[in-house]
Amino acid sequence: MASWIEVPTKNNAKGKTRILDGLLPFEIKRVFFIQEVPIGAIRGGHRHFKTRQVLVCLQGSCTVEWNNQMMGETLTLQSGGRGLLLEPEDYHVLRDFESNCVIAVMASTPYDPADYIESSYS
Amino acid sequence: MASWIEVPTKNNAKGKTRILDGLLPFEIKRVFFIQEVPIGAIRGGHRHFKTRQVLVCLQGSCTVEWNNQMMGETLTLQSGGRGLLLEPEDYHVLRDFESNCVIAVMASTPYDPADYIESSYS
Repeated sequence: MASWIEVPTKNNAKGKTRILDGLLPFEIKRVFFIQEVPIGAIRGGHRHFKTRQVLVCLQGSCTVEWNNQMMGETLTLQSGGRGLLLEPEDYHVLRDFESNCVIAVMASTPYDPADYIESSYS
Repeated sequence: MASWIEVPTKNNAKGKTRILDGLLPFEIKRVFFIQEVPIGAIRGGHRHFKTRQVLVCLQGSCTVEWNNQMMGETLTLQSGGRGLLLEPEDYHVLRDFESNCVIAVMASTPYDPADYIESSYS
């Protein structure tokens, strides 16, 4: 089940700093950044066997739909003080990217194609 | 001594994805994001006892000056396929932030104020 994690943000005369330090329920093994997603494009579209991940929107917004067979939600991921924790069983799709949207993803595993399950629940 | 790390970037119909996976010479213990730095503001201005860090510019650009007493450089950190690895002894200052500049920093340590050395080399 997806859940929000509060991400402390410092705002001062030196700018804005968001800090992930001891907040995540896993060790960070991989970080990736998604940006310049064309209008209409869809990201995600999978769930995992093992990978847990936290999505932090740094700029703009997108829509996240997640479903774990028991329940699901459609959320707006936007620049702000929260990151979205997705559990392995959370099938997720990201869509409706604003043109300036920048997403950082911290994942609990190195990339492994065998950890991806493309099928949603039916 | 600061050095560049190549950061693979996937560019396709789903947008741009930069991936840090098994590239860094340390375990990631902390991630922070710097953005909306006012014109003229300066970030950094310290070195460390222990912390190693990699700076990846996701958008815009800034200037990084680093010095390890033996040598130093002034570099432009800009959106692209490289991250800048700073060693603990690399005193560093970030300046000349473009207004849209977004920097991600992956660090080898949790935050510890005792790990900051504010003085440069003289």
